[in-house]
Amino acid sequence: MLSVQQSEPAWMNRMHDNRNMRPEIRKDPLSNRWIIISKVRSMRPNAWITTRHKSADLICPFCPGNESETPPEVYAIRKPDTKPNKPGWSIRVISNKYPALIIEGEINPISNRLYEKMGGVGAHEVLIETSHHDLDLTSMSRKHVANIFWVIRERFLDLSRDKRFQFIIAFKNHGKLAGASIDHPHFQIIAIPLIPKQVEEELDGARQYYLKNSHCIFCDIIDQELMISSRLVTQTRHFIAIEPYAARSPYETWIVPRSHQCRFQEISYELTSDLADIVKITLHAMNQSIGKPAFNLVLHTSPLIKPDYPEYHWHLEIIPKLMNFAGFEIGTGYHINPIPPEEAAAKLREAVHQHSF
Amino acid sequence: MLSVQQSEPAWMNRMHDNRNMRPEIRKDPLSNRWIIISKVRSMRPNAWITTRHKSADLICPFCPGNESETPPEVYAIRKPDTKPNKPGWSIRVISNKYPALIIEGEINPISNRLYEKMGGVGAHEVLIETSHHDLDLTSMSRKHVANIFWVIRERFLDLSRDKRFQFIIAFKNHGKLAGASIDHPHFQIIAIPLIPKQVEEELDGARQYYLKNSHCIFCDIIDQELMISSRLVTQTRHFIAIEPYAARSPYETWIVPRSHQCRFQEISYELTSDLADIVKITLHAMNQSIGKPAFNLVLHTSPLIKPDYPEYHWHLEIIPKLMNFAGFEIGTGYHINPIPPEEAAAKLREAVHQHSF
Repeated sequence: MLSVQQSEPAWMNRMHDNRNMRPEIRKDPLSNRWIIISKVRSMRPNAWITTRHKSADLICPFCPGNESETPPEVYAIRKPDTKPNKPGWSIRVISNKYPALIIEGEINPISNRLYEKMGGVGAHEVLIETSHHDLDLTSMSRKHVANIFWVIRERFLDLSRDKRFQFIIAFKNHGKLAGASIDHPHFQIIAIPLIPKQVEEELDGARQYYLKNSHCIFCDIIDQELMISSRLVTQTRHFIAIEPYAARSPYETWIVPRSHQCRFQEISYELTSDLADIVKITLHAMNQSIGKPAFNLVLHTSPLIKPDYPEYHWHLEIIPKLMNFAGFEIGTGYHINPIPPEEAAAKLREAVHQHSF
Repeated sequence: MLSVQQSEPAWMNRMHDNRNMRPEIRKDPLSNRWIIISKVRSMRPNAWITTRHKSADLICPFCPGNESETPPEVYAIRKPDTKPNKPGWSIRVISNKYPALIIEGEINPISNRLYEKMGGVGAHEVLIETSHHDLDLTSMSRKHVANIFWVIRERFLDLSRDKRFQFIIAFKNHGKLAGASIDHPHFQIIAIPLIPKQVEEELDGARQYYLKNSHCIFCDIIDQELMISSRLVTQTRHFIAIEPYAARSPYETWIVPRSHQCRFQEISYELTSDLADIVKITLHAMNQSIGKPAFNLVLHTSPLIKPDYPEYHWHLEIIPKLMNFAGFEIGTGYHINPIPPEEAAAKLREAVHQHSF
C-alpha cells in the first residue's frame, strides 16, 4: 500500500559523543516526578520564548532540498526511484537533531539517600508531516493525514522492539505559543525507559474502574456522552470527538475510537482514514470557533511492558493554547477553566454543522 | 507594629448571585485530578493569550484613586486617618473581582457512576503589593517586601479559621508570559475545600522519607546542598536559595527556611525581613543572568487539616518562564530541562557576587 524506505535505525549525531552533552534523567525526591536534563535541547532555534515570538531567520530544515540539515531519515514515504535523504518524500521521519534522550548508552541507575538518576536513554524522533511548509492537518488531504497516522504506527511498532523502552508518546505542538520551535508541520515521537507517573495514574484510575465495573471506563464514557450528547462535538463511523467532563482548559477535545482498543499501534488502515476525517473536522471546527488557535495534540496509549491492558483505551487529546499555565496550576496541578465543556461543545457542534467536508 | 484596617471578611460580588455563574469543581475520572470551572474568570481583561500579548487599554484598577473599580478591601496597611477603599494604603487585599471560587454556598458533592462534582466554594483574594504601579519585588524596599509576606501570613491566619478550607495557596504571576493579566504587582491567595493531589503527593514523598529516616527531607536537603554547594545560589541568616536537584525548568529556584517550620503562617516578623532579603537578592540575580524573565512564584506550605506536619517544610518555588510547557510535558507530566541546575546555580552565584545590596 505504501512505498517505504527504511534507513539505519540507530543513528546518533556525533555531537552527543561529548560526554558532557549526554542527557540524564533525575528524580525529584518529593514528588517522585522524573525530569530529563538535556543540554543539547538549548541549542535549538527558538528554544526560548520571548515576548516577541520572533522566528529565527533560518532556512527551514524540514523543507525538501534541505535534507542535509537534518540527521538522516529513519523512515520515509517517498516516490519510487528517489534516494534516502534527498527530495521525493511525502512523509519523512528523522532522529531529532536536539534530542531529549539518545538511543545509545546505558540506563545505569545511581542513587544516594536523597537523589536518584539514570542515563538519558531513549529515542526522540521527528515526523515531518508533509513536504509543503504551509500546509496543516486541516488543509492536507484525508488520505495524507491517514498516512501520517499510519507512519506513527510503523514507528511505534519498530520502537516497541527495543526492550529498554517502557512507553512511547507521540505529540504535536502546533504554533509558537504551543511550543513549536519550527513552523513546518511535524509530530514528535519519544520512547522512554520508564512509565511516566501521570500515565501510571491514568492507568490506575482506569484499572480501579475496571475492577469495580468490569468495563473499560472509556467505553462507558463513550456510551454516556453519546446518550446525553451535551459534550459531543462530532462522530464518525469509528470515532467520537468530545469535550471531556473535567476539561483542563477551554475547548480541550478528546478523540476516542468507539471500539475498544488499548494500543494505538493496533489501528487498522481503515481506521486511520476515519481518524484522519475526525481530526480534520475537529481542528476545522476549532479554527472556525476560536480563530486558528495554537494547540498541543497528544496521543495517549498503553505502555509496552504488558501484552494487554483491558482497562485502557487509546485516544487523542487536543488542547488549544488559549490561556497560560500559571502559579495556581503549577502549585496545585489543578486547572481553572472559564469555559464549561458543554458550552465549548455547543460552539464546536455549530461549526461542524455549518461546514461540510 | 503595623497600622491595619480590616473590613467585612465575607464580601461577595452581586454578579455571582447569577446561578449560572457559580463555579463548580469537577473530578476527572481517569486521573482523579479536580478542575475548577469558573465562567466569571473569562471576563477578566487579558484573560486570553494572543501572539501579540497586547495589554487591554484600561485604567489600572489596582492604582490608588481607582479603589472603586475593585471589590472592597478585606485587609490593608494604610496611613492613620485614611478610610477603607480610598487612597492612603501601601498594601491592599481585596476579593478577586473574577474569582475561581466563591466564599458563599455549599460544597454539596454530587456523583454518579462516572462523574463527580462539588460546589466551587473557596476564597480567592488579590494582594496588591504596592500603590506604585511600576515597582517590583527587586525595586521595593526590604521593609516593604517583608510587610507583603507579613500580610500574606495575616490572610492565611484569617482564612484558616474557615473550617471548610483544607488548603491555602499563595502565588504571584509576574509578566504576561507567566500569566499575569494585570501589570500592577500583586499576589493571589486561594483557599480551597480540598488538598490538591499534587500537594498530597509532595506530602507523601516527604512522609515516606520521614518514616524511613526520622528526618524532615527538606532539612536533609539543606544540609546536603550547603555541603556540596554546587546548587547553592545564596544564603542569609535564616534562608537558603538553591536550584533543586530535579529542576523542572531552567533557573527554577527554591527558597527554604533553614530551621524546620511546616507552615508559612508560623513565620516571625524577623524572618519575613530575612525572607525579603533573599527574595530580592535571588530575583535580582535572575534579572542579571537571564534578562528580567517573567516568572511564577509559588508558596508551598502544609495543609490546614492537621495541627502539625513534622515531615513537611514550607518554602517558595520560583519558576522563570523561559520555555513553553508543551506536548511532552502535558502528556507525561515530566519536564525536559536544557540547563542543568548546577550551571544555573553557578550563573546566579556569579550575579549575586557581582552586586551588593
